[in-house]
Amino acid sequence: MIEIGLYMAIHFTPVTMRKKAIVALGGNALVKEGQDGNIYDQFDNTREVSTSIVEMIQDGWNVVVTHGNGPQVGAILLQNNTARDVTPPMPLGICVAESQGMIGYMIQQCLANALKKAGIKRLVVALITQALVDETDPALTNPTKPIGPYYSKSDAEKLRNDGYQMTEQTKGWRIVVPSPDPKAIVEGEIIKKMLDDDIIVIALGGGGMPVFEKEGWGLNGIEAVIDKDLASERLAEAIDAELLMILTNVEKVYLDYNTPHQKPLDNITLKDLKKYYKDGHFPLGSMGPKVLAAIRFLECGGKKVIISHVEKGWSALQGKTGTHIQK
Amino acid sequence: MIEIGLYMAIHFTPVTMRKKAIVALGGNALVKEGQDGNIYDQFDNTREVSTSIVEMIQDGWNVVVTHGNGPQVGAILLQNNTARDVTPPMPLGICVAESQGMIGYMIQQCLANALKKAGIKRLVVALITQALVDETDPALTNPTKPIGPYYSKSDAEKLRNDGYQMTEQTKGWRIVVPSPDPKAIVEGEIIKKMLDDDIIVIALGGGGMPVFEKEGWGLNGIEAVIDKDLASERLAEAIDAELLMILTNVEKVYLDYNTPHQKPLDNITLKDLKKYYKDGHFPLGSMGPKVLAAIRFLECGGKKVIISHVEKGWSALQGKTGTHIQK
Repeated sequence: MIEIGLYMAIHFTPVTMRKKAIVALGGNALVKEGQDGNIYDQFDNTREVSTSIVEMIQDGWNVVVTHGNGPQVGAILLQNNTARDVTPPMPLGICVAESQGMIGYMIQQCLANALKKAGIKRLVVALITQALVDETDPALTNPTKPIGPYYSKSDAEKLRNDGYQMTEQTKGWRIVVPSPDPKAIVEGEIIKKMLDDDIIVIALGGGGMPVFEKEGWGLNGIEAVIDKDLASERLAEAIDAELLMILTNVEKVYLDYNTPHQKPLDNITLKDLKKYYKDGHFPLGSMGPKVLAAIRFLECGGKKVIISHVEKGWSALQGKTGTHIQK
Repeated sequence: MIEIGLYMAIHFTPVTMRKKAIVALGGNALVKEGQDGNIYDQFDNTREVSTSIVEMIQDGWNVVVTHGNGPQVGAILLQNNTARDVTPPMPLGICVAESQGMIGYMIQQCLANALKKAGIKRLVVALITQALVDETDPALTNPTKPIGPYYSKSDAEKLRNDGYQMTEQTKGWRIVVPSPDPKAIVEGEIIKKMLDDDIIVIALGGGGMPVFEKEGWGLNGIEAVIDKDLASERLAEAIDAELLMILTNVEKVYLDYNTPHQKPLDNITLKDLKKYYKDGHFPLGSMGPKVLAAIRFLECGGKKVIISHVEKGWSALQGKTGTHIQK
């Protein structure tokens, strides 16, 4: 009996030796402020951001890299609209899928090269990923998120005929789409299996293609965008990650950001963060969803969230910078 | 000692219960002759082609779906060129990666829906896939493969300035790129692991992004295209598939194709097929690479190759149609 017990303990317990983390890269990781999005800059930036991830892997972490796609999907939408008279424009979901292919390829190649250079033998692959939303999410009937490039009035008219809602801003017209709350990541179970197999996964580009469960049909795409950090949090739950690292364009989270009284947060508890969140310290379009993702993750059993700059990932993990949030 | 032997047999032998197959879908699977490539037709066609694959899975096969991308990457190249003055055009490798995202998403969603409808609980995911080529492949210095749309003379000039070689055909100018021989699939080991985990994988869209091993650097992309069927064969070797099914726009392989004497092949041995291949029965641009893939696969330990029409996959597997090639 003892032998059987021991045997079962060794052989039927899922072996997950390494600590698991999600590293969520902001849109500025691959296209920096002022760059035009050409491929050479994007590859250079991808190589740069890979170094932090290699350090983490060397330190014993099993990593899923998620990433934004703002600049890339913006360029793809613009290409689709400019060429609309010569080839049928694709809907937003397809453009997001294209950006997952493009960015996934870059990260997969650069990260594998960097790992090899560091003498680490690990497999890396990018997955096409869908985010499940609730068909009754009120956000779906209230498009609020401006995406992609600025268009002229006549182009805006054409896009409106395609079914897009358009909004006028100071620099021109933009597409506005709903941003529903992600409920789950369709490929979550697969990603967990792959991590348990020690594979490094790139997933959830642009927050994933939003899909809903259509009765008698199955999954169906929807014209919307998903917040990448809220989606990354759902994935972190699905894979039982202990760390969610959100890398963006600021080194720390601030109270009273962009005011003379702005105050960086170094270490903060979940309880205090929730209070500041409720008090409205974190704007909806930028730090808000990141802080909400942090709150959800820690409330669902996650151990730690770090928010820092894309160039400071490894430094933040060592405790040298970043905002560190724990229960 | 007997106990240890038994224990090892149970626990250290890879458990691969299901037979493994590669199903390689031709470019006509998702965009049919005469269609303009709009997304609604593409989804309809994807649902249609999914039914054969569901039948196979129901029959006990573990499947990797590979696919062409001719119409899709053609549209992406055209969009890139048309919008070149407003956003930097991407190189061919990136356009292929975008097409993998787009097509992978469609197949992944439609196939998962079809499986669910059939009451089969299986996980499906599309992977970004690279094909390794040899830097010294003579094909690399001899671009022969015309790809993508027809351009005007002035557009051809711009593309030439981007570094593309252009060729004049009767309908206009086209990009010509090298088509080197794939040596291995970079993600082969990952795909094998996933299959052994009972996951259905979509991979190798457009034959994969061609990469070579650059000394002191790692993998590096190259402006070329890979034949999807030759790449699928390399993947079939990597995953120890027993069946390679190539689905295209004809129901069978023919001798003297498109002549008054054309003769369909129903069942043929490797030896006879090699003879016909040497005799020049299969043109380079169409059936040639498919037959070469068949020959390579059977010579490397594969059991069977079936070549048939994209709408006849399941029917061909049941022996009702198609060309069946065995050792």
